[in-house]
Amino acid sequence: MRPNRLRELWKSGKPALNGWCQLPDSISAEVMAHQGWDCVTVDLQHSAVTEVEAVTMLQAISTTDAVPMVRTPWNEPGVIMRLLDAGAYGIICPMVNNRADAEAFVAACRYPPDGIRSNGPYRALMYGGADYQAHANTEIVTFAMIETQEAMANVDEIAVTPGLDGLYIGPSDLAMAHGEPPVLDHFDGPIVPLIARIREAAHAAGKVAGLHGASAEYAIRMISEGFNLVTPTSDIRLVAAGAAQMVADIKAG
Amino acid sequence: MRPNRLRELWKSGKPALNGWCQLPDSISAEVMAHQGWDCVTVDLQHSAVTEVEAVTMLQAISTTDAVPMVRTPWNEPGVIMRLLDAGAYGIICPMVNNRADAEAFVAACRYPPDGIRSNGPYRALMYGGADYQAHANTEIVTFAMIETQEAMANVDEIAVTPGLDGLYIGPSDLAMAHGEPPVLDHFDGPIVPLIARIREAAHAAGKVAGLHGASAEYAIRMISEGFNLVTPTSDIRLVAAGAAQMVADIKAG
Amino acid sequence: MRPNRLRELWKSGKPALNGWCQLPDSISAEVMAHQGWDCVTVDLQHSAVTEVEAVTMLQAISTTDAVPMVRTPWNEPGVIMRLLDAGAYGIICPMVNNRADAEAFVAACRYPPDGIRSNGPYRALMYGGADYQAHANTEIVTFAMIETQEAMANVDEIAVTPGLDGLYIGPSDLAMAHGEPPVLDHFDGPIVPLIARIREAAHAAGKVAGLHGASAEYAIRMISEGFNLVTPTSDIRLVAAGAAQMVADIKAG
Amino acid sequence: MRPNRLRELWKSGKPALNGWCQLPDSISAEVMAHQGWDCVTVDLQHSAVTEVEAVTMLQAISTTDAVPMVRTPWNEPGVIMRLLDAGAYGIICPMVNNRADAEAFVAACRYPPDGIRSNGPYRALMYGGADYQAHANTEIVTFAMIETQEAMANVDEIAVTPGLDGLYIGPSDLAMAHGEPPVLDHFDGPIVPLIARIREAAHAAGKVAGLHGASAEYAIRMISEGFNLVTPTSDIRLVAAGAAQMVADIKAG
Amino acid sequence: MRPNRLRELWKSGKPALNGWCQLPDSISAEVMAHQGWDCVTVDLQHSAVTEVEAVTMLQAISTTDAVPMVRTPWNEPGVIMRLLDAGAYGIICPMVNNRADAEAFVAACRYPPDGIRSNGPYRALMYGGADYQAHANTEIVTFAMIETQEAMANVDEIAVTPGLDGLYIGPSDLAMAHGEPPVLDHFDGPIVPLIARIREAAHAAGKVAGLHGASAEYAIRMISEGFNLVTPTSDIRLVAAGAAQMVADIKAG
Amino acid sequence: MRPNRLRELWKSGKPALNGWCQLPDSISAEVMAHQGWDCVTVDLQHSAVTEVEAVTMLQAISTTDAVPMVRTPWNEPGVIMRLLDAGAYGIICPMVNNRADAEAFVAACRYPPDGIRSNGPYRALMYGGADYQAHANTEIVTFAMIETQEAMANVDEIAVTPGLDGLYIGPSDLAMAHGEPPVLDHFDGPIVPLIARIREAAHAAGKVAGLHGASAEYAIRMISEGFNLVTPTSDIRLVAAGAAQMVADIKAG
Repeated sequence: MRPNRLRELWKSGKPALNGWCQLPDSISAEVMAHQGWDCVTVDLQHSAVTEVEAVTMLQAISTTDAVPMVRTPWNEPGVIMRLLDAGAYGIICPMVNNRADAEAFVAACRYPPDGIRSNGPYRALMYGGADYQAHANTEIVTFAMIETQEAMANVDEIAVTPGLDGLYIGPSDLAMAHGEPPVLDHFDGPIVPLIARIREAAHAAGKVAGLHGASAEYAIRMISEGFNLVTPTSDIRLVAAGAAQMVADIKAG
Repeated sequence: MRPNRLRELWKSGKPALNGWCQLPDSISAEVMAHQGWDCVTVDLQHSAVTEVEAVTMLQAISTTDAVPMVRTPWNEPGVIMRLLDAGAYGIICPMVNNRADAEAFVAACRYPPDGIRSNGPYRALMYGGADYQAHANTEIVTFAMIETQEAMANVDEIAVTPGLDGLYIGPSDLAMAHGEPPVLDHFDGPIVPLIARIREAAHAAGKVAGLHGASAEYAIRMISEGFNLVTPTSDIRLVAAGAAQMVADIKAG
Repeated sequence: MRPNRLRELWKSGKPALNGWCQLPDSISAEVMAHQGWDCVTVDLQHSAVTEVEAVTMLQAISTTDAVPMVRTPWNEPGVIMRLLDAGAYGIICPMVNNRADAEAFVAACRYPPDGIRSNGPYRALMYGGADYQAHANTEIVTFAMIETQEAMANVDEIAVTPGLDGLYIGPSDLAMAHGEPPVLDHFDGPIVPLIARIREAAHAAGKVAGLHGASAEYAIRMISEGFNLVTPTSDIRLVAAGAAQMVADIKAG
Repeated sequence: MRPNRLRELWKSGKPALNGWCQLPDSISAEVMAHQGWDCVTVDLQHSAVTEVEAVTMLQAISTTDAVPMVRTPWNEPGVIMRLLDAGAYGIICPMVNNRADAEAFVAACRYPPDGIRSNGPYRALMYGGADYQAHANTEIVTFAMIETQEAMANVDEIAVTPGLDGLYIGPSDLAMAHGEPPVLDHFDGPIVPLIARIREAAHAAGKVAGLHGASAEYAIRMISEGFNLVTPTSDIRLVAAGAAQMVADIKAG
Repeated sequence: MRPNRLRELWKSGKPALNGWCQLPDSISAEVMAHQGWDCVTVDLQHSAVTEVEAVTMLQAISTTDAVPMVRTPWNEPGVIMRLLDAGAYGIICPMVNNRADAEAFVAACRYPPDGIRSNGPYRALMYGGADYQAHANTEIVTFAMIETQEAMANVDEIAVTPGLDGLYIGPSDLAMAHGEPPVLDHFDGPIVPLIARIREAAHAAGKVAGLHGASAEYAIRMISEGFNLVTPTSDIRLVAAGAAQMVADIKAG
Repeated sequence: MRPNRLRELWKSGKPALNGWCQLPDSISAEVMAHQGWDCVTVDLQHSAVTEVEAVTMLQAISTTDAVPMVRTPWNEPGVIMRLLDAGAYGIICPMVNNRADAEAFVAACRYPPDGIRSNGPYRALMYGGADYQAHANTEIVTFAMIETQEAMANVDEIAVTPGLDGLYIGPSDLAMAHGEPPVLDHFDGPIVPLIARIREAAHAAGKVAGLHGASAEYAIRMISEGFNLVTPTSDIRLVAAGAAQMVADIKAG
């Protein structure tokens, strides 16, 4: 099976730069995949991307060395298994609030006896290789998102869930859950210690920690604090911010 | 009929800032349309956008005040009429090389007796209003692209084609046609006078001039030289350049 | 945030006329949205419409003043949140049978602390405005469908669910659930008192009441009985009934 | 090869009722095909329907006995051949202005030695049967649209084009071409004799005559005048008119 | 209502040959449906097929006499009801592990009072006929997949679930669940008695038994052992194996 | 620029095995691309594949080493340029009947000064590399199809067209053009010398020769006769023939 380069990166102590695709088309995904990211995540939760486009986006990412990942729309076994069958090498699951959520998520990602994943990797076999089923349980990467008060209360026992590879932070949800505005980059304020707490819980359990953000500056800071995966932007954000800046620059000129 | 804001801008002597959509999805188009452009062009020539996505992209742009435009894939009456029926308020036609090309292009855009456009504006009626057919010939904007040696030789007689509203420059094609590399922004070099020549031909004929570019700086310069419409970037360019910069910044950090 | 015109209508004591889209394309949705409805609902339950088309249909409706609504395929938080992110200003949820169902439905529609909705309104921000998250909990309209025996038994406690805005009746399901044929318009018979019972439960709880139907005559009667939202037809019904009538008229002629 | 029921109808002296599909989805097409039309035409000229949807729409129509027809977006051999390969049993070609146009259109529809159609009926073989190529030239129906001043001047020599089966009138284009507003149903006025002239040219050449309209009343009148195929409405028209009437009726109630 | 030919086959003691569609397009489905299968199943679990393509695939299958079936992506009532509304005449549900799973599955497939299916068969009415709702509960075929250790332990009580028509075996999942490699055709080895056990449980309950396989030889053997439905290949398998063989043959030549 | 492996193969005197994709989905294309073909051609002429699917199919093929090719629907510059922009490394053009046709085809494929191709390789740049424009004219492969009587008469002057790389034979069209049934594999009969004639014309001009067929046996024979590229099957053919054989085998068993 084609090895998961994320595992190799982390073994060597390096952080992963993660691109984020919210635009529902395979051209945008291929463009993103060519820009030097270690992995590229197709977001099926907060976007117009459905499984229809996700498959062609995973194909587009597979024309490069970037590791193809997805964020599942919800913690549902049917869609998780379909995304894995389509060749995702990593899954980020939103709203994992307790140990039971984490276990259900992991079970959907692993073949028996580790989990309940059903067999039929119609595209993963092409991307991963003919021995895919023999190694998928240990190659595929799983991230549980910590983004609610309940999840904060259970973060340690979530972190130690067998088969779970990492915790991933949605800072804006985490902020809203704690009565703060939906901001992504927290250089200071009440969400900073929560983010540190989650990172520490992951590392204490021997797992990796990743998070969402909205700038290179914040990504650099988070890497320096030990995060193993950072997502500093998305394609929608690049189009919106880039275009707005261009219009402003010309009007100013 | 809903008036074409481009005509109003030009009457008041102002240039139009034009956004450019190459990504084949309606979300990217809606994001672009919200960033302050005067008009947004759906490019069906050099992109994966087909008529399938173009229609939903025109719908997405129509949720804003930005004028919906298209670049037709080629100077073919069938597709030009279909794009107008779908609600495009402006058409940019590539590779117009002589007066006959220009006349054929304009004829496809105008109802009789001005042209040969067939009646059936299934969506344009909704966007433009119930009196669409009575005013479409004078509201819809038409641009002929000047981007070959032959077109340069015929630029004056193209410019004066009745019913043609403007000339639009594809600088990279113009460069390749004259033995230069496919560069967009020409601050100096042999393409600069050609660009000026086209602008002057347009203005001499009482028409507008527009051009493609790749930076705010160039757009500002071109506006200062009298261009009436500038396209300083595209959604693909924003994703590619923005992501590459983000990756580079983080790696540098 | 763009105000929800449905709330304004109801505050002024007026009923809402609701268009219903079952055809999976954005042109049909835009055509519907131009015919004078106060709101237009994209039906993802009993139709071929999936999230793929729903997004472009919501864009199409957003070119008009009609309030964009959806019927979710099922009471599942993942899809409900995705439809809200896509810009739905109202959600009708089928098969709400008891208080727990109603609470789960409402929770999926509301940001913390009122609910568990996850943050990421990628399109809703464009449609609603930059302050969307601050007001979404009070602007978005939620309807629970009452259409089973169990729901009838629990109608009062469903109606008073905090955050739920209204009850919506699926008369044909309600009929089948009570051993009657799947008819929509009930001018008399055993379903009439059930419909009245639901309307009264909604109003007693200070909520609105809406229902499905199949004729102007029935819609007029239901409005006169106090219903706040009526759905008198759908695009599929208009095509089928209109075409069958046309064929019959010509054959008769 | 499955016989073309239109030819059987015409042999028995009966007119054909033709449904018209402008909505780009296969559900609307299937709904239309179930309402009793003799044939159903997928319109690729004045609609958002492209070849993508046309194929699934032809499949949907093929679940019924209605003869599947198309209107090609333009008189281009590539797209005409593709639509025939997809299983269209009849083709209506817009803007046929002279004998050369008509001959080019017919040539694209016929295999050698009658024409230049290329072999590869990937779906037509399934719909028509294994002997499709042996009979397609005589079963497939071809209509040339007469809708310009030039076409009126050449109507007789267009009508006698070998291999052409009929003339089809686009009344609103014909009206605009003669300085009249884009109306479909002409009960009186200057377009009436033109329509009669085209019908007579078709019949004099031993061909059939068809036309577009917008009411049962007009279709009945045209049948009584000898037209062999009438198109009295379209799916878009049914949705728009039906919904507007419903809203008006309820507001009046 | 159009009768379900599978029930007729089984009444006459004949096995059903089942084609299997994993390619997400309606042309492949129509090609499959023309090859002589008694029924054709659209697989939404282990494929890129979503509801978007499934609807057009069901339309394509409906151009033939083959019974249109689906495998639902998961045991979820929302999607099961949508697939039935789209005209599926049979549903195979994966991962039915116990009586509660089986009852939930069947309930989603049956109208009250037998189940909880919601009314709105927008396409099933066209395929099945106007009296669809009156007969759907007894015509639609339901298969529960037995493919885990838990399901083996509960196979008898699953088999006798009222309203369930048959058991369907996923041999590769069953093998993985019992520590064996993911093989489809089990001519010998430890999975053979499990397959026999499931078949016997089905027949003991008066239900039918079906299974997946990968060769004509295995299908023939399974029919001889009493299986009522066999699936010997899929479209993806035919493309992959056929192309690989062709390449090998030419290279060998 | 990524080198075109077809040119390398031919330089070393080896024939190319060409897979053929008529199914309009990217999964089928990816499956085909994994079976060992030297190149895989997406057929946009005789299939339901449009540019919409062709782009994702080219992406899918690009996940492998197989050279991505297309057959253009017709000899039209707009679509040819769009397919090249999408990353096609080879183009087969149908119905090239004379020197003018061949020159127009080649011109559409080559940047100035060799041709008229417009600049904008939005995806080809990613697949080919940043120096794509500098080398595309010499790397992209062009095939003219010889399949009519007129083409036979002009085969020599077509073959020597500068910039044309090869001749490709459509045997069934060639047969029909000469009064024979539409057969692909011609082991004997009147089409055999025509096929030899085309091959000799290509080789005499220093060009390559390719052809379509329907079996390994015929491909082997044609390779032995000197053909440089053979297409022995297609995905549709594999599904249809494979499924029919499977059904027959089981019924025979």
